[in-house]
Amino acid sequence: MSAIKQRKIGIIMNGVTGRMGTHQHLMRTIVPIMREGGVWIDNDTCLMPDPVLVGRNEARLEKLATASGINKWTTNCEKALSDANNIIYFDAQTTSRRVQSVKTAIEAGKHVYCEKPTALTTAQALALYHQAEAAGIIHGVVQDKLWLPGLLKLRMVGKSGLLGKILSVRGEFGYWVFDGDGVPAQRPSWNYRTEEGGGIILDMFCHWRYVLDNLFGEVSAVSCLGATHIPGRWDENGRPYGANADDAAYATFELEDGVVAQFNSSWTTRVRRDDLLSVQVDGDHGSAVATLRRCFVQPLSATPRAVWNPDIDDPHDYLSDWLEVPDTVAFPNAFRAQWELFLKSVAAGTHFRWNLLEGAKGVQLAEKGYESWKRRAWVDIEKLQ
Amino acid sequence: MSAIKQRKIGIIMNGVTGRMGTHQHLMRTIVPIMREGGVWIDNDTCLMPDPVLVGRNEARLEKLATASGINKWTTNCEKALSDANNIIYFDAQTTSRRVQSVKTAIEAGKHVYCEKPTALTTAQALALYHQAEAAGIIHGVVQDKLWLPGLLKLRMVGKSGLLGKILSVRGEFGYWVFDGDGVPAQRPSWNYRTEEGGGIILDMFCHWRYVLDNLFGEVSAVSCLGATHIPGRWDENGRPYGANADDAAYATFELEDGVVAQFNSSWTTRVRRDDLLSVQVDGDHGSAVATLRRCFVQPLSATPRAVWNPDIDDPHDYLSDWLEVPDTVAFPNAFRAQWELFLKSVAAGTHFRWNLLEGAKGVQLAEKGYESWKRRAWVDIEKLQ
Amino acid sequence: MSAIKQRKIGIIMNGVTGRMGTHQHLMRTIVPIMREGGVWIDNDTCLMPDPVLVGRNEARLEKLATASGINKWTTNCEKALSDANNIIYFDAQTTSRRVQSVKTAIEAGKHVYCEKPTALTTAQALALYHQAEAAGIIHGVVQDKLWLPGLLKLRMVGKSGLLGKILSVRGEFGYWVFDGDGVPAQRPSWNYRTEEGGGIILDMFCHWRYVLDNLFGEVSAVSCLGATHIPGRWDENGRPYGANADDAAYATFELEDGVVAQFNSSWTTRVRRDDLLSVQVDGDHGSAVATLRRCFVQPLSATPRAVWNPDIDDPHDYLSDWLEVPDTVAFPNAFRAQWELFLKSVAAGTHFRWNLLEGAKGVQLAEKGYESWKRRAWVDIEKLQ
Amino acid sequence: MSAIKQRKIGIIMNGVTGRMGTHQHLMRTIVPIMREGGVWIDNDTCLMPDPVLVGRNEARLEKLATASGINKWTTNCEKALSDANNIIYFDAQTTSRRVQSVKTAIEAGKHVYCEKPTALTTAQALALYHQAEAAGIIHGVVQDKLWLPGLLKLRMVGKSGLLGKILSVRGEFGYWVFDGDGVPAQRPSWNYRTEEGGGIILDMFCHWRYVLDNLFGEVSAVSCLGATHIPGRWDENGRPYGANADDAAYATFELEDGVVAQFNSSWTTRVRRDDLLSVQVDGDHGSAVATLRRCFVQPLSATPRAVWNPDIDDPHDYLSDWLEVPDTVAFPNAFRAQWELFLKSVAAGTHFRWNLLEGAKGVQLAEKGYESWKRRAWVDIEKLQ
Repeated sequence: MSAIKQRKIGIIMNGVTGRMGTHQHLMRTIVPIMREGGVWIDNDTCLMPDPVLVGRNEARLEKLATASGINKWTTNCEKALSDANNIIYFDAQTTSRRVQSVKTAIEAGKHVYCEKPTALTTAQALALYHQAEAAGIIHGVVQDKLWLPGLLKLRMVGKSGLLGKILSVRGEFGYWVFDGDGVPAQRPSWNYRTEEGGGIILDMFCHWRYVLDNLFGEVSAVSCLGATHIPGRWDENGRPYGANADDAAYATFELEDGVVAQFNSSWTTRVRRDDLLSVQVDGDHGSAVATLRRCFVQPLSATPRAVWNPDIDDPHDYLSDWLEVPDTVAFPNAFRAQWELFLKSVAAGTHFRWNLLEGAKGVQLAEKGYESWKRRAWVDIEKLQ
Repeated sequence: MSAIKQRKIGIIMNGVTGRMGTHQHLMRTIVPIMREGGVWIDNDTCLMPDPVLVGRNEARLEKLATASGINKWTTNCEKALSDANNIIYFDAQTTSRRVQSVKTAIEAGKHVYCEKPTALTTAQALALYHQAEAAGIIHGVVQDKLWLPGLLKLRMVGKSGLLGKILSVRGEFGYWVFDGDGVPAQRPSWNYRTEEGGGIILDMFCHWRYVLDNLFGEVSAVSCLGATHIPGRWDENGRPYGANADDAAYATFELEDGVVAQFNSSWTTRVRRDDLLSVQVDGDHGSAVATLRRCFVQPLSATPRAVWNPDIDDPHDYLSDWLEVPDTVAFPNAFRAQWELFLKSVAAGTHFRWNLLEGAKGVQLAEKGYESWKRRAWVDIEKLQ
Repeated sequence: MSAIKQRKIGIIMNGVTGRMGTHQHLMRTIVPIMREGGVWIDNDTCLMPDPVLVGRNEARLEKLATASGINKWTTNCEKALSDANNIIYFDAQTTSRRVQSVKTAIEAGKHVYCEKPTALTTAQALALYHQAEAAGIIHGVVQDKLWLPGLLKLRMVGKSGLLGKILSVRGEFGYWVFDGDGVPAQRPSWNYRTEEGGGIILDMFCHWRYVLDNLFGEVSAVSCLGATHIPGRWDENGRPYGANADDAAYATFELEDGVVAQFNSSWTTRVRRDDLLSVQVDGDHGSAVATLRRCFVQPLSATPRAVWNPDIDDPHDYLSDWLEVPDTVAFPNAFRAQWELFLKSVAAGTHFRWNLLEGAKGVQLAEKGYESWKRRAWVDIEKLQ
Repeated sequence: MSAIKQRKIGIIMNGVTGRMGTHQHLMRTIVPIMREGGVWIDNDTCLMPDPVLVGRNEARLEKLATASGINKWTTNCEKALSDANNIIYFDAQTTSRRVQSVKTAIEAGKHVYCEKPTALTTAQALALYHQAEAAGIIHGVVQDKLWLPGLLKLRMVGKSGLLGKILSVRGEFGYWVFDGDGVPAQRPSWNYRTEEGGGIILDMFCHWRYVLDNLFGEVSAVSCLGATHIPGRWDENGRPYGANADDAAYATFELEDGVVAQFNSSWTTRVRRDDLLSVQVDGDHGSAVATLRRCFVQPLSATPRAVWNPDIDDPHDYLSDWLEVPDTVAFPNAFRAQWELFLKSVAAGTHFRWNLLEGAKGVQLAEKGYESWKRRAWVDIEKLQ
């Protein structure tokens, strides 16, 4: 028996005290990877993350260190960057701090992995990409929804040929976010303030871009109408405030090959569908509906011959015409799945597919969505490079 | 006991051999009205329709006369118009013949009731309206969906105050129309040919206009993307043909007071929802979802506090959060309901609310929908008068 | 990082060896508050209870001290009152001892928090209130049902507008208390003896008063019939005794604005309803039914059109016409919730809303209930002040 | 084999064109009795009803004659009374016409059977009884609820000893009667107008009297609060009107032996219980709940030992603690069951138990209910004789 080689890999985790940083990236990804002995990169080599927690509030860092069992933490990011053992810089800070921090990390020669949106403008996002490429580092951006079990199943359905040629896609995302008067809101108040980076278009179009590009075809144009349906809300301390960011977006996308994708995103709708997110794909040979973790199909040969006859009660149960895609493989946490792939890329020194260019495309789609809303017209999505 | 007064009312039914004319207008409306003794207009007066069937094919007319038990029929519409006993002209011909026929009927002094679209252009539709007004006749246009049980229940829900202020509306209409290769198509082939008045925008936007105007607020602008997803189909005789008309439309409407209505119409989608048509209305105090004949509600106080957590299976059944609106009143056939109101208007000599102006608005919305598609931009809907 | 300031707050807990004192006030409220680090009154100040347990039985006090981990206890209440660190006096003794003890505590300058009923007569209860006001202390009375999840949800439903104008309220409280012959009774025997302060009217009307006043409107009149349905019972030691206190009460209340509230309270009924307590509110726009921890609603638009037809089996399931109000907020223990509010009032030096005047109103309603029973007539409830 | 003797029995059915007269008395009782060959009174004798339909509207009588197949009808009641073959006079007219008509029938020597209320005042109702007794005729009053399957089962349960001594009774009757604005009301508008004999107390207390007297003990006192919760309604023609009659009544009755019966009657409540009417009886040995057609029991030995503990979720399903009384006998239509008994009494020449004295008691309870409401006090029910 040959000995197992464990390679330590230093990771600066900046902004890890935020909601996503703590739960998704640290507690559900890095900590379990460490507890389970690291990420295997070949038969006898294992990558073991060696994180340092970085944030701005000492008390919260200390508490998180205790909770996670990770004893390295600091409020001094520069110092962490100066440590040559730390070869990866991860960023989950609020969006407005991302560009400068990532820039500094690249200058320090670190590989970079970061949350979306990568920047507040396409120009900045693209500049980061160019800088990273010039520096020769490996870079990645979180695109977790690609590893959602429902979307993975949908991809398998597409690959199986059941859909035939894809004709159209419908996405319905949303739920009722309480206004905070009585029932506390499920989202932070900054989401509803433009000046703090709020807005559902900025938040969600980054996701829709990579979902569409990867599953159904490259986005070539967007038509988007935003709205602030609920103008007054109550914040975390029960104080009323004016909401000026978009809380709903009604968008249609054109994809290559004439596929049309219509997506509604809303924090002001109630859910009468399978899940908080559902994506229906209609093809000439069949259709599929994906939820967060499930997927249902209806092949052409089992498609009912519905007839429009509203005069009489229709006892047909349309939900019963679909068949669920079974769980044939295990699905790890989506964030962890992408992290492991990134760590392997770094270990192997290879290009990472979901990188800063892909991240910039997400920012671009949000930017173009706002432009479309303002101009009241379709806006083409030029290719970034 | 006072005697019952029966007033005969002569009706020219032109185009009654077509699908809608035969089933909805003749066999499910005029024939049962006659069999049940007419339409009561006050305690002792009853209107008894006295129809004459008009069409272009003698054999079909004769067959229909036998089936309906109505022995008056002719291929000579002019003759029917010259009979002073016939005071109503009804038109269910193909759209391209409607304008000229209605025009002639108005000139002959008849009251007019007709199918939609009333014309192929807004200008023509509006001209018909002006002509009818100038002639002082009573005129009406079929807007049957307003009497669908599901939409009537939805209106009652709105009136009851459950929705509060309406924020947005989502309409999803459609089903899979087979291409005719093997399984026969559920719709006639002319629906898929532009030159014969086909196209889902022209067909459905006439409906969406009066549904939106009457239930949620006047339409002020439209953004629409059409598509011909299935370019090749097989006709009634099994012969392949090229389809050039739009078979799907992705539209967003702006209504007064900032309400946004997003409506998909498609003959190329499969149904994973309550019914072939479903309309969801979200308000700040509650939501409702109407299908053709049913309606479901979710008040604010019973709205679940959904939390986005795609990592773990969500056992919540979102359909169980809704309560069905019960059948508290009897709902007659929608076509018959509107016919009876029109007959009463004629008997009373009063203005009919759903008239040629309303019909013209439907044509206008379809026209503007096509314009939006072509211009790739939002198009405002100016007020017609 | 600024240091956390912890303010100790001495609390004399008199009568803490009784059932309510031990379970609700000590073990489920003060002890967990202490274990969880106190009550936060602002971002960096925390109130830490410092209780002294007071009772009449040394052995029970010692045992309770061990169970709770609170090492200060005494049978000498006077001594505890003389300690200036003890700024709150809490009383959970039997009702007959309450007035004198609270009086003494007020004279000693303590803030007062106590169980209900605050006295055996309205005059005494009101005198306590006046004494407390004159002394300038902060005072509160336990009104725990206001923090029951079911009633909190009911209040949210009312606030959401679903009920419209409230027409009537029906309360059904009760369950079968075994007579102690074989199956031990679930309630102490003194509950069934008038001379020891027993009686369901005295016990429950204190609750109904604040529930009605706070949720549905001020009580203006009462009609009450009491009964001693089970005249013979067996006590804690298995000895038979004569029960002379009321074990059931049938009451109707008039509230402001013409609302009628009909409440049955009984220890001699069996439960065929959602819970031991259920409160139905009917309004012109909808109804709600609250249980201890749940709430169900039926809006007007989903109200079935029931028709009286007892000849034939009615397959309708009336329970299915209701929608449950989901758990959108976390509900702490009701007793603890009110305690924390009281502690904050004391810390801030502000008036406490549920005070000795409110407590006196509860005693008044019980007194007027007994008067109505005796006089066999409606009795008006004059305003206390 | 001896021959079957068929005895014809002439019955004047006055007011048979009304709702109850037509459906319950004629179509569901007399007509099926006739079709099934009459009522057997001993092994070889059968009573065959020979009805004459009496009303005020010829057209409606003629239509009813056709529907029922009974060819004798007249608008001249006097003539029918003068026919010696008609030995029974039945009255289902509106209440205001009953007294004079019944009086005339007794004077004509007819046996009398009639609907409730028998009169608008106790004095009149009692006078009718005295007149009938003096005339030596056999007389009966409809008390159909006694033959409801649910109440028959309840009586069987009581007889079986399961309840032990009855302690208390709770009746909950009612449902939401729509106000007629949109959804048509389920009850006639005169029900809501005092001047036309409306009011729920007058309507329902006639029933509660015989239900209480026969099942639980004679009523000795009443306390009643009425209310007009919905002051504005829309009538059969969609016209708004002011409602001044009581639409809800909150009553408590004292029965002999100290039994307390609390009954709510309401046309302004929504149903969260087993049925439109439910009656719970609590006894020291067990409880029973009757609905219109079902009955559920809980014996002492299966009574759960409920403990009041609102702090924690109570997963106990209280509805599952009850056992349904099975259908061990067939239950005929309640109206028909009483009719058959009355016909047998007439044939045998014997006293009928549910007679004009019992009918007068019903009127008395309504009268005393209104008096209690007005006087805001308990009112004793003196014995009628």
